[in-house]
Amino acid sequence: MSEQNKLSSPSIFIGKQGNGIISFGSGQPDLPPPREAIEGINIRNDLRYGLIQGEIELREALSKEYPTSTADNFVITNGASEALDLIFRALSPGKVLVPRPYYYSYPPIIKLAGMEPVYTDLNEGRIDLDDFKKKVTDCKVVLINSPSNPTGRIESLETLKEIERITKKLGIYIISDEVYKDLIYERENYNIQGEHVITVNSFSKTYAMCGVRVGYLWSNVQSIVDDAIAIKTHTSMNTNLVGQDMALHAMSTPKEYILEQQRIWRGRRDLIYKGLCDLGFDLWKPEGAFYVLPRCPKPKKFVWLLYERYKVITYLGDWFGSPDRIRLSYALDNKEIEEGLNRIKDALKEV
Amino acid sequence: MSEQNKLSSPSIFIGKQGNGIISFGSGQPDLPPPREAIEGINIRNDLRYGLIQGEIELREALSKEYPTSTADNFVITNGASEALDLIFRALSPGKVLVPRPYYYSYPPIIKLAGMEPVYTDLNEGRIDLDDFKKKVTDCKVVLINSPSNPTGRIESLETLKEIERITKKLGIYIISDEVYKDLIYERENYNIQGEHVITVNSFSKTYAMCGVRVGYLWSNVQSIVDDAIAIKTHTSMNTNLVGQDMALHAMSTPKEYILEQQRIWRGRRDLIYKGLCDLGFDLWKPEGAFYVLPRCPKPKKFVWLLYERYKVITYLGDWFGSPDRIRLSYALDNKEIEEGLNRIKDALKEV
Repeated sequence: MSEQNKLSSPSIFIGKQGNGIISFGSGQPDLPPPREAIEGINIRNDLRYGLIQGEIELREALSKEYPTSTADNFVITNGASEALDLIFRALSPGKVLVPRPYYYSYPPIIKLAGMEPVYTDLNEGRIDLDDFKKKVTDCKVVLINSPSNPTGRIESLETLKEIERITKKLGIYIISDEVYKDLIYERENYNIQGEHVITVNSFSKTYAMCGVRVGYLWSNVQSIVDDAIAIKTHTSMNTNLVGQDMALHAMSTPKEYILEQQRIWRGRRDLIYKGLCDLGFDLWKPEGAFYVLPRCPKPKKFVWLLYERYKVITYLGDWFGSPDRIRLSYALDNKEIEEGLNRIKDALKEV
Repeated sequence: MSEQNKLSSPSIFIGKQGNGIISFGSGQPDLPPPREAIEGINIRNDLRYGLIQGEIELREALSKEYPTSTADNFVITNGASEALDLIFRALSPGKVLVPRPYYYSYPPIIKLAGMEPVYTDLNEGRIDLDDFKKKVTDCKVVLINSPSNPTGRIESLETLKEIERITKKLGIYIISDEVYKDLIYERENYNIQGEHVITVNSFSKTYAMCGVRVGYLWSNVQSIVDDAIAIKTHTSMNTNLVGQDMALHAMSTPKEYILEQQRIWRGRRDLIYKGLCDLGFDLWKPEGAFYVLPRCPKPKKFVWLLYERYKVITYLGDWFGSPDRIRLSYALDNKEIEEGLNRIKDALKEV
């Protein structure tokens, strides 16, 4: 089973689908986007450059969701990924405090921008404030991702507010990656606030339109907004106009759509959580997003076995800074989740 | 006239239009895109992530335009800007030889990636091979932009082939920015070739769809294609799917469209070139793209005077590394070009 050494990154599983494969791999909604995002989109005849900062109508619509904001506080980007890239390039150099396990793009995107990641290990999937306080003093930025990929956890309001206070006092920025803000089961999302906060968000998860690549950053820090625009002027220019139009239309989707999505995700969450518990896995109950991160004794061997013999794709926790776990996305319908769980049950007999 | 100090970058003129303004500023076609790019685009219901490298159909269609290529040689990007950004980040660190005057994003995009620009000054708007040979030995990459923004010049076939030979011998990469390849008046475009070449291109200028942001890089250097994909995986993921679909459709535009565009641009070129010569300006006759770069005695004063008193936007040559010149884009209809020339004539009486 030396082939398990191929497991160096998730890219090994890209494009693997059909043919009886059950994929707990990909981190994106499987449900269709709301019809508002697609119907009534007329591709205009004027396809000249748009504003680098983003179309004014879209930024104005977004500003209504952020208290005391205006369109000037936003930069529309090619997904949350580009928002993060622009922010780190604007803030470079310096250290970034990253809770671990982390979204697998965080360390490379930080290093690519010439910054240095510093890790604070989560305790039962949540930020350990003692460790956080020790490590934060040396940093320029803190990166928070609640709800989290890959843990599925949300931080308590107390923790988030304490982080607001500590960082404000020390003059440290918070980057709050809230792309799962609408996929949260336990409470309303808490939008981290402050004059030192940069929020990253996206239309990808809420409206199931990952491939359209429209996200944004929000901040009260004028210099960061200005620097992000200045960098984007050279590195990609305006975010594609048709995508921005689709995002604007998606915002008119009735609130019921989001509630219905939450209902579906909660059902799937319950199914996979119970299923994995029943199989003896030790895991945290997801409170948001759509991931579970169970402990696994020989993760490389097991992930490879599942893929090779059972056509089940799971991701190595190691890719997310968690070498003794595996990650499963439950962006699958209930039937597939059940079938996947059955195959995992069979695979367990082999190890 | 101390307000002329506001002229620190082209951003001062962004969004300035209507109200009687004649803009020779913006570097994008004013003509509408071909109907092929817009009609028949059905936004699909599946908006999940696409391949980071780009949609296979689009890459296969492109591969027919590049001898002995396959879809594997391409990465589809958010315009030529992102292609350049990815390439420089993949090649960093090292020195990049840049002909000066240059497209104004080149120096910042090179520096942002942690590379260092080195300049070779053009002679009458063309590469000076003696200076080029002296400076290239120290470099990792050479950046060629023929037809050129802002000079409007094309390099001779002999020069381009000599550059191919010199760089190949020295083991230096060529990045060939060919976004104006279809806007060329004097001969067919010459596609710089070799195992050490990375070509950057775009649908923006050929099909008048700048705001859709679809470009690409092509290379035979497998490691550069791989590294560009690896970086893009973290910094922006797939290029927006609807834009890629529009680009694929645009490729079915009959060749006559491009020939008709060339005819229009050539007429405008003749008009502005003769007009500026008649006004006594010293300038190079454009052979491609849609820019002129005349000498101008007090460029800051003149650009500001034109804007403030005559509502005519021109760009400072200084932004393009050419402090004793001004740049005019002729992406305007003939009537506007004539009106602009009349106003320039009046302004000249004031200096």
